[in-house]
Amino acid sequence: MRTSEQYLKKLQKMGKNLYMDGQIVPRDHERFLTGIKTMSDTFDLAHDPNWPELKATSHISGKKINRFTHIHQSIDDLNTRRDLTKKFFYHAGSCIQRCGGADTINALSVVTYDIDKKYGTEYYKRFLKYLEYFQENDLVAPITMTDVKGDRSKRPHQQADPDLYLRIVEKKSDGIVVRGAKNCNSMASYSDELIVSPSRALTKEEGDWAVAFAIPADTEGVIILGCGVNYGHKRKHMPAKYAEYGVADAFTIFDNVFVPWDRVFMMGEVEFAPLYGATTAIYHRFNYTACKPAWTDLFVGATALAAEYNNIEKHEHIQEKIGHMVACAVLVDAAGEASAKRAWKAPSGTWVPGSVGTHAGRWLAGLNMYREFETMSDIAGGLGTTLPYEGDFFNPKTGPLLNKYIKRKADVPAENVHKLWRYMQDTIAGEGTGYMQGAGLHGGGSPIMEIIGLMRDYDLEEKKKIVKRLAGIPID
Amino acid sequence: MRTSEQYLKKLQKMGKNLYMDGQIVPRDHERFLTGIKTMSDTFDLAHDPNWPELKATSHISGKKINRFTHIHQSIDDLNTRRDLTKKFFYHAGSCIQRCGGADTINALSVVTYDIDKKYGTEYYKRFLKYLEYFQENDLVAPITMTDVKGDRSKRPHQQADPDLYLRIVEKKSDGIVVRGAKNCNSMASYSDELIVSPSRALTKEEGDWAVAFAIPADTEGVIILGCGVNYGHKRKHMPAKYAEYGVADAFTIFDNVFVPWDRVFMMGEVEFAPLYGATTAIYHRFNYTACKPAWTDLFVGATALAAEYNNIEKHEHIQEKIGHMVACAVLVDAAGEASAKRAWKAPSGTWVPGSVGTHAGRWLAGLNMYREFETMSDIAGGLGTTLPYEGDFFNPKTGPLLNKYIKRKADVPAENVHKLWRYMQDTIAGEGTGYMQGAGLHGGGSPIMEIIGLMRDYDLEEKKKIVKRLAGIPID
Amino acid sequence: MRTSEQYLKKLQKMGKNLYMDGQIVPRDHERFLTGIKTMSDTFDLAHDPNWPELKATSHISGKKINRFTHIHQSIDDLNTRRDLTKKFFYHAGSCIQRCGGADTINALSVVTYDIDKKYGTEYYKRFLKYLEYFQENDLVAPITMTDVKGDRSKRPHQQADPDLYLRIVEKKSDGIVVRGAKNCNSMASYSDELIVSPSRALTKEEGDWAVAFAIPADTEGVIILGCGVNYGHKRKHMPAKYAEYGVADAFTIFDNVFVPWDRVFMMGEVEFAPLYGATTAIYHRFNYTACKPAWTDLFVGATALAAEYNNIEKHEHIQEKIGHMVACAVLVDAAGEASAKRAWKAPSGTWVPGSVGTHAGRWLAGLNMYREFETMSDIAGGLGTTLPYEGDFFNPKTGPLLNKYIKRKADVPAENVHKLWRYMQDTIAGEGTGYMQGAGLHGGGSPIMEIIGLMRDYDLEEKKKIVKRLAGIPID
Amino acid sequence: MRTSEQYLKKLQKMGKNLYMDGQIVPRDHERFLTGIKTMSDTFDLAHDPNWPELKATSHISGKKINRFTHIHQSIDDLNTRRDLTKKFFYHAGSCIQRCGGADTINALSVVTYDIDKKYGTEYYKRFLKYLEYFQENDLVAPITMTDVKGDRSKRPHQQADPDLYLRIVEKKSDGIVVRGAKNCNSMASYSDELIVSPSRALTKEEGDWAVAFAIPADTEGVIILGCGVNYGHKRKHMPAKYAEYGVADAFTIFDNVFVPWDRVFMMGEVEFAPLYGATTAIYHRFNYTACKPAWTDLFVGATALAAEYNNIEKHEHIQEKIGHMVACAVLVDAAGEASAKRAWKAPSGTWVPGSVGTHAGRWLAGLNMYREFETMSDIAGGLGTTLPYEGDFFNPKTGPLLNKYIKRKADVPAENVHKLWRYMQDTIAGEGTGYMQGAGLHGGGSPIMEIIGLMRDYDLEEKKKIVKRLAGIPID
Repeated sequence: MRTSEQYLKKLQKMGKNLYMDGQIVPRDHERFLTGIKTMSDTFDLAHDPNWPELKATSHISGKKINRFTHIHQSIDDLNTRRDLTKKFFYHAGSCIQRCGGADTINALSVVTYDIDKKYGTEYYKRFLKYLEYFQENDLVAPITMTDVKGDRSKRPHQQADPDLYLRIVEKKSDGIVVRGAKNCNSMASYSDELIVSPSRALTKEEGDWAVAFAIPADTEGVIILGCGVNYGHKRKHMPAKYAEYGVADAFTIFDNVFVPWDRVFMMGEVEFAPLYGATTAIYHRFNYTACKPAWTDLFVGATALAAEYNNIEKHEHIQEKIGHMVACAVLVDAAGEASAKRAWKAPSGTWVPGSVGTHAGRWLAGLNMYREFETMSDIAGGLGTTLPYEGDFFNPKTGPLLNKYIKRKADVPAENVHKLWRYMQDTIAGEGTGYMQGAGLHGGGSPIMEIIGLMRDYDLEEKKKIVKRLAGIPID
Repeated sequence: MRTSEQYLKKLQKMGKNLYMDGQIVPRDHERFLTGIKTMSDTFDLAHDPNWPELKATSHISGKKINRFTHIHQSIDDLNTRRDLTKKFFYHAGSCIQRCGGADTINALSVVTYDIDKKYGTEYYKRFLKYLEYFQENDLVAPITMTDVKGDRSKRPHQQADPDLYLRIVEKKSDGIVVRGAKNCNSMASYSDELIVSPSRALTKEEGDWAVAFAIPADTEGVIILGCGVNYGHKRKHMPAKYAEYGVADAFTIFDNVFVPWDRVFMMGEVEFAPLYGATTAIYHRFNYTACKPAWTDLFVGATALAAEYNNIEKHEHIQEKIGHMVACAVLVDAAGEASAKRAWKAPSGTWVPGSVGTHAGRWLAGLNMYREFETMSDIAGGLGTTLPYEGDFFNPKTGPLLNKYIKRKADVPAENVHKLWRYMQDTIAGEGTGYMQGAGLHGGGSPIMEIIGLMRDYDLEEKKKIVKRLAGIPID
Repeated sequence: MRTSEQYLKKLQKMGKNLYMDGQIVPRDHERFLTGIKTMSDTFDLAHDPNWPELKATSHISGKKINRFTHIHQSIDDLNTRRDLTKKFFYHAGSCIQRCGGADTINALSVVTYDIDKKYGTEYYKRFLKYLEYFQENDLVAPITMTDVKGDRSKRPHQQADPDLYLRIVEKKSDGIVVRGAKNCNSMASYSDELIVSPSRALTKEEGDWAVAFAIPADTEGVIILGCGVNYGHKRKHMPAKYAEYGVADAFTIFDNVFVPWDRVFMMGEVEFAPLYGATTAIYHRFNYTACKPAWTDLFVGATALAAEYNNIEKHEHIQEKIGHMVACAVLVDAAGEASAKRAWKAPSGTWVPGSVGTHAGRWLAGLNMYREFETMSDIAGGLGTTLPYEGDFFNPKTGPLLNKYIKRKADVPAENVHKLWRYMQDTIAGEGTGYMQGAGLHGGGSPIMEIIGLMRDYDLEEKKKIVKRLAGIPID
Repeated sequence: MRTSEQYLKKLQKMGKNLYMDGQIVPRDHERFLTGIKTMSDTFDLAHDPNWPELKATSHISGKKINRFTHIHQSIDDLNTRRDLTKKFFYHAGSCIQRCGGADTINALSVVTYDIDKKYGTEYYKRFLKYLEYFQENDLVAPITMTDVKGDRSKRPHQQADPDLYLRIVEKKSDGIVVRGAKNCNSMASYSDELIVSPSRALTKEEGDWAVAFAIPADTEGVIILGCGVNYGHKRKHMPAKYAEYGVADAFTIFDNVFVPWDRVFMMGEVEFAPLYGATTAIYHRFNYTACKPAWTDLFVGATALAAEYNNIEKHEHIQEKIGHMVACAVLVDAAGEASAKRAWKAPSGTWVPGSVGTHAGRWLAGLNMYREFETMSDIAGGLGTTLPYEGDFFNPKTGPLLNKYIKRKADVPAENVHKLWRYMQDTIAGEGTGYMQGAGLHGGGSPIMEIIGLMRDYDLEEKKKIVKRLAGIPID
């Protein structure tokens, strides 16, 4: 298990293929430091006895490894991941980020095995070797799946430019060459590896698009357009835990990138493309059933505290508004728990969460994203967006006046009011607000994707039969 | 365990205190037969090997008893009740009804014990004796809790007429005399017993209102105004399972009713009044986390089948509308499951479901009630409400024409279309539609009551602390 | 202008082609009396000086006619129709019903003219002659448009049975023969005439389905399957205005019906089929922008009165719930008003309401239907559905007790409470509840149909151009 | 009428009482330039023949004046303001800002007259003199009304610090001294004047808080904490009209500010405090019924264009999502139009928009704010938030690749796609996103304030009477 220092040193040594706003920038560029802070915690806390959830035992080596490099061996593993995700959200006030890599390797462990079973290929063997390396070096990888997709009414092979879905452009003796782009590539800017898989179902003409592989993030031909997202304004006077953390996003281009055979995990087996998509998605959506209720809890806590400071906490309409957020947090969490309980063991031995609960939970989480911001804004009031800058509170002339005028309940110090409203403003009207909303809506799959997943896996025919029996309609 | 025959015979022998529309009516009056059919099934299926869930072992006598007379001894008991409730809903297409009595005796088992512990009273001893009788005779009782409440801005003792909340009007050597009325008294019309408890928190001036007791439903002074609710039109030509079942409601008046001491379970211990309310409610709401998803499944099945018959099942907007119903069913069910997992053992040894999940689940169920009718009506189309009468389909002149004109997909017989739309019409535009909607909204507590229960039991202070820590606000 | 007596006498003389539940029934069958009462009012009130809105001046004869036989000659005519519709809803507590016929003749006046202009046919001349007859005899007709539609994924000519959309099956020297069925045919059971038009766009193969005509409702070959819908329980002791009124629905079969030439208004001009649909729809939806806010006002009034009786009227959450209903009523009404203002004059001289406002208004009305029932049920409480029968309030033993126990605020007589809750129960849990809900959702077009109409007529391209200009995108 | 140059020059000469993040800054500080651009347009376009709406004729001087200094003399004036507001929103893609000052002087014109009528004071005379000055100098002022409010459960005079609502602290021979703070003070940072009025109803103990007045924004003792809000990222390569504009907010402290008598418009007449609040609010909310539908049209246009570029514009679910936005825009607009039609003439001769339509319209607008961002994000997809920086599109290595990979429909140039998604990202995930959402929710009054205003002015008693008559309840 690495330390954050080792992780950072490696980042600093990586190749110069990260761009931001037209410039090549180092991976530890200022805008990425809050994102890197999250990653760093996932390394350092693994050595902290208060975070036993971060450690796991490798099923291939028997060694202690970071849980984010682990393949789920049981329902307990799934539950521990949910607990860990929630705990971290409470710890940092934001996304743990490293789940993506873990989800990807778990999906690889399922799909490579299944392909081999059908075709006698050796993807699973390659995968296990790669996994050993991944675990040994305690690596970080984002999900690298979403294609740029071009004309949405056309399939990959029908696009005017076939590269609009990433594809194999050349097969060589020692490996393949791929071209295309993946966006919404999250924390690619400060990851070690990129693990690529197809994003959709493919037809038999689309063998070249049926490709999965893993490469170092600074491989030749890879270009990462990065963007760091900070939750809040920079703090000069009033440090706050949550302001240390942030996230990032990236648009990653594969401009004729060579991938050696031992890193190729699918090549042309088109009928397995949806399984890569669905399996990665189910793992990732399962995480949302944990991180989203934890996030809602922060909305709930902040809103309840604001109501307390305003001395209106017990008013029925306040209780009702907060209550709706609480109810949704509880429901999403319960759906996640139910999914873990209904997990199943894939042929490779990897455990996969139940689909129905995962999809219902992630759906409700997405559905409520914007509504939660609305509720928080509603109760934070106008000042939730219009709070003056931090500096104004510390200017000797204006500071005392501002502190005088933001007082609410007599026994709550102005400083506490200031800190809470700063937190709320950073959340609902900060630089990253819209990004957070978009991530909460689309991340892991937009609400409509959850409905599609849900309807694919819910036993509708059984429900029709029940109705037929009750209504006297013959059941064939 | 009784048979339905024994149950019915007893009903027929009961005193003449049941009224309907101004007349004294027998308990097996035609309008109650569909409700009695449900009750009958709970007796007869207990003897059916396919319904092992209906049997339990009494923790006091060790005998086999009907589960609806059982006191929950474990989380398994709670889960079995949920399974049973769902299974019955699928079996009959409607409410199992008998849960109310079971919920009430479970609440008595918790509260009488707790009162005794504080006051050295002997309510629990009386209760156990009553329970033995209840189990031995396999009795039926509704929840009899909701007071008529008069002026909602006034407390019980402030009402112009103090009887607007049921109260003790006289204490005698051999028992007490009570006066008042309880409404929304469900299946009182064909129950053996009435078990009464207070419906709200009481102040110290309100000792006379703090009363709980059990009496036979035909005790002198009890007047039941009954109303039977049938789901569908009567069937002459096309029998259907669901049309055999129905529910009922009642308004019950206690006009100076004498209750002997051994049937009195609370008398003046005002601080325990909310515990009666909350405990009965939590059991009853817990049932809703099972019956409501099952009910939604019927909406889902019927709607999906209608879409199939119309040949539009795969259209995205159809899938999305059905998907929203499915997602809610899954979420409510998961919340119930999570509540069972978080159940706790009361001092009396009785197991009580977790509050937070129960409330969140029942809340979502209530919230979606009218929306589900809307969705079903939406997809059933105009004919969902305007389907001609059954007789018109069997008149030799009009029948063949109607069958010709209700055809949809070529391979679905007109008769199946007719049966399905009949079922839908009975559901969304039948005699009982509004009653069902009201019951789904208010039964066990309206959505706002769930939010109140949820906010009482969710650990808000912990969430505030998390936010304080993140925002740098000192935690006292 | 007829009297209600004349109208009724004619009904009684009509041919025996009305069926209900397998029997031939007279047009003044008991179940239709509440519907007939509405129609009767539209005749009698036209002679009442307090209802000047019911009179109009024929643009063809210059005579005073009933407004429901009038062709809109101005924006004022459109506004008067909206005023009349609202006034009647307040008067009777329900739908005025006769709008359908008026909408149909207005649509005919637009479309027949336009067809003639293109094809040199003489439909408009025939129409004017028919109109004269219609006005002179002050006739009643429902909209007769909705086909039964069969397999929804197939067009009319692709159906296994081509009659699933009404069509011409024979052309004779003196007229045509048609076959098919129209459902959701509202008050056909007590109408004089049926005016038929196509319900959808047609392709060039579908000339036989492009047919519009008018015939007496008892023409040979016409079979009406009727269904009368009463709002409330029958009243024995407490008469109430609203309980005098009701509506009806019908499924009408055209089993080889002969239509003489002078009654044929379209025959094969397929490209005008959508214009019939759209024009009839716009008129009918325009009415909804008047009747629906009036209906909502009844929900608002009843709910506010219930809150007053319960003594909780000023509570914020009560105000908010009622306020949401009020806001929607105001918005729908404003949209109707805006549509009248944006009305346009068709080539025939008939005025047609603006589409955009009409569709937005009707959409919101439909969207809120079930929600309004939910809100009323929410505030009516459990008793809104479980109120005992009227007879129980007048039985000498139970009556005084029920009156004692339904009291709320001390100064409101029990009788008023009873009457209000009776009204609410009849509305939200009465025999016709589900029918009303379905009608409110689908009548005149389901919400999705409004969105389709709205998007057809809103100038989206202009909005794209605005955005292009702002974003710097070249405008072609 | 001033030019923008004159306006700017005056700003540059104003006193040094504007702070930002702890520093005194000039009024034309870089962060305010986009806001100043809007103001500048309101001056310069008044000289443009294409913007006749910006000119009005003063009812006191008969001179041509800027409409934003005009007192409404007719319903036409109200309609012209709505037209102007919409036109400007389409022109700049954002808020016209200057409405606040116009609303405030109109409110003054109503209330000062009414106070004088009751008390024989001379506020209206003072006001007219001030108005002449305001018109002559073509001045800019924000609404300066919202107090900071302290403990929300306490009235002004009950606050631990009485200054938490702005109040008179001294009455002198030549005027008064006031102390307090007003927040959500919008464009105070680049306004000429501040016009202050009370924000709530006051009791008779609260005469010192019943104060209204106008002063230059750089009066001694005034401290403005300003904050400029830009919609979008700064553009280096691709200028866009919308990116030139922005808004601002301010927190304004009145630290013992002297106001001479001729600028005092209320002093102690507590019963008129709510009239100031209500009248200012009705004017401001009336504007929202125009700017909000125009804003929605931008969402509509951008979303429809994105769907077109993605080649999915005609899909039913896309049409439905956009259709919901369109319907709401149409409804809010219609409500505003209906309010203008129902405007009334105050005793001073000033026209005031109808309350009911204004409140219903503004309510729906607020209710939909977050939902519209959600819909736009939904259809913009992940790239709506994760689009790489502008610079990356112009770097010679990454630019061509990015343009390759953001292509959608073959015939739409990549540059257009880039520009549209840049616009969408600036809107839904830009620096000002959360600010815009908060302003859309709260500006002019949060949705609950509209419901309160609506319920105050809707004739509920009439609706109760209608229901009483229908239900047979005697009408007192």
